[in-house]
Amino acid sequence: MRLSLAEPNYLKDSVSIISELVNEAVFKVKPNAVELVAMDPANVAMVIFKMLSSAFVEYQVDKEVDIAINLANLKQILKRAKSSDTLVLELAEDKLKVQLKGENTRTFFLPIIDIEDKEQRIPDLKFPVSIKTKTNVLSEAIEDVGVVAESVSLVINDKVLTVLAEGDLSKAKIEIPSKGDTIIVSESPDTIKAKYSIEYLKKMMTASKVADDVTIQFNKDYPLKLDYKSVDKIFLSFILAPRVESD
Amino acid sequence: MRLSLAEPNYLKDSVSIISELVNEAVFKVKPNAVELVAMDPANVAMVIFKMLSSAFVEYQVDKEVDIAINLANLKQILKRAKSSDTLVLELAEDKLKVQLKGENTRTFFLPIIDIEDKEQRIPDLKFPVSIKTKTNVLSEAIEDVGVVAESVSLVINDKVLTVLAEGDLSKAKIEIPSKGDTIIVSESPDTIKAKYSIEYLKKMMTASKVADDVTIQFNKDYPLKLDYKSVDKIFLSFILAPRVESD
Amino acid sequence: MRLSLAEPNYLKDSVSIISELVNEAVFKVKPNAVELVAMDPANVAMVIFKMLSSAFVEYQVDKEVDIAINLANLKQILKRAKSSDTLVLELAEDKLKVQLKGENTRTFFLPIIDIEDKEQRIPDLKFPVSIKTKTNVLSEAIEDVGVVAESVSLVINDKVLTVLAEGDLSKAKIEIPSKGDTIIVSESPDTIKAKYSIEYLKKMMTASKVADDVTIQFNKDYPLKLDYKSVDKIFLSFILAPRVESD
Repeated sequence: MRLSLAEPNYLKDSVSIISELVNEAVFKVKPNAVELVAMDPANVAMVIFKMLSSAFVEYQVDKEVDIAINLANLKQILKRAKSSDTLVLELAEDKLKVQLKGENTRTFFLPIIDIEDKEQRIPDLKFPVSIKTKTNVLSEAIEDVGVVAESVSLVINDKVLTVLAEGDLSKAKIEIPSKGDTIIVSESPDTIKAKYSIEYLKKMMTASKVADDVTIQFNKDYPLKLDYKSVDKIFLSFILAPRVESD
Repeated sequence: MRLSLAEPNYLKDSVSIISELVNEAVFKVKPNAVELVAMDPANVAMVIFKMLSSAFVEYQVDKEVDIAINLANLKQILKRAKSSDTLVLELAEDKLKVQLKGENTRTFFLPIIDIEDKEQRIPDLKFPVSIKTKTNVLSEAIEDVGVVAESVSLVINDKVLTVLAEGDLSKAKIEIPSKGDTIIVSESPDTIKAKYSIEYLKKMMTASKVADDVTIQFNKDYPLKLDYKSVDKIFLSFILAPRVESD
Repeated sequence: MRLSLAEPNYLKDSVSIISELVNEAVFKVKPNAVELVAMDPANVAMVIFKMLSSAFVEYQVDKEVDIAINLANLKQILKRAKSSDTLVLELAEDKLKVQLKGENTRTFFLPIIDIEDKEQRIPDLKFPVSIKTKTNVLSEAIEDVGVVAESVSLVINDKVLTVLAEGDLSKAKIEIPSKGDTIIVSESPDTIKAKYSIEYLKKMMTASKVADDVTIQFNKDYPLKLDYKSVDKIFLSFILAPRVESD
């Protein structure tokens, strides 16, 4: 296996985003893409990552390889990459060998770790609503409601997405209509409302670094799915369990 | 009541400055201005704030209203305002409704709190000296003396303001003569000296954000008064009790 | 004694760098230069500083004076200097008088402290290898290896400097060949390897602020010496004891 990236920032940013939610994970290096599917330790959020072979300047993979790695360690090493460096990934000495080639060549060896092989299956979800918008529209709405509460309700009604949060005393409401950069498609004439953790959403919002647009899908008391896509090179999705009201 | 601001930064900065000294306060919304007079919890400093109706693009006040509010909460919400947003303040549902209107409309509701109705009276102070200078001249002098001590003496002698501090071992002295941007007017031929807390002064220095000039007034073992004025829209004053030497 | 500097940044940065390693030290004000030689409290590192009289616009020294000073305090005061200020150093009232002359004159008095008079002698070291390179090449290599370990091996072999670190699990290696801005001179045909503390090296790397180039000298299980020189005005050197492997 030998993978070379001329623009290390894609991988650097992706690993940084994923490491917000997951400590350890398995990269599946397949003939046509590098993939990762992982749950956060509390089993509340899933992250799905895919980087196509076309994103690499060199993509030499004879057979599929699983590379289990500590993401915090990998993030630390990738942080040392400058945008002008070429990044080379190989397996050597039972380790992941990461080379940053710039003025000088810096070589890092990261231990392959053991992860109990519970293959993560991506759940098959169906959603009645889909909202496509600019990543900053969603990020700012989450920041806004984060000022007053710890969980947020997303509400779709009459082609308007309402982001709603109530704290003990204060409350916040952002209305995002289907216009301009925001396109709301709903198959249901009814109001659809679901509640999610702001803490998790804030971590997911860091994905704004790799994409300009986000697709938001959810349903009543049902998981939320966020899809970020970067120029057909990187796909980053999050699935977040709902907070179901106990009243 | 309905007040609209086209430039939310004036209010945003003012609330941020006031919240350095005061946790909770009453905004008095009068027909011609919004006013606030409050003491810090230790009763050492008073802040006096006034924002004229002319600062607002819409100022609809039928009768005077008192709005008691937690300033830290209000500050957090105003922080979400972008300079391009229009800020609208109303009363609704027994709460203060704050709307930030930009690309999308974000609405916040803040609880009106109960504050024991001890109306703050602005003391009637007379000062023999008055120094008008650039805010950064005063701020930097306070930062300078903050390096060596916790309290500072202000001394007027022969048209020179001396900012003086002595720590256990080190000491610092800044001389600011009446020239250039600094105009010193003293009615007394004598040396006038008084001592104040640097910690409080540093908090007051954040008012540099809303004004370019500051007027400093004080007297021997007597309160200090700082006046900041922003283009006839905002008046922000501080009164600080002296530290009287016990020798 | 009266010393004036038109560019306070040289002294400001130097004191900031030295204070990373040393809390208290003696400045020897000699007729032709200000000098300082000090050990860090753990006796692992020595810092050697020299600022030539030619760096000053006024250098009035009748006889050699020793000024023992708390460097953290001095650093705090020098931080208040703007690059446009003139900095004047004198002795007055048994204190070090530091004047910052800009729009206004700010005067600080720092206590002269007592330091047990153990004159620091600079050890007479001989090195078989010398590497001259850009400060950022060395700084980045130290940052790189700092990601995986707490100590670093420097290895010279065949005109290549290898910076090598092994943590419990990860490892890192940077190869810096003798080319471009890097010139490696070795008197020995053998491989030379020695190990040093990354924590100390990181503190020394702050000297990049005052110089563009660094000269690195070391030997097997022997101290390391780093020399920074700033336009013939400032000489800053560090000597660092090796970490000798106990195997």
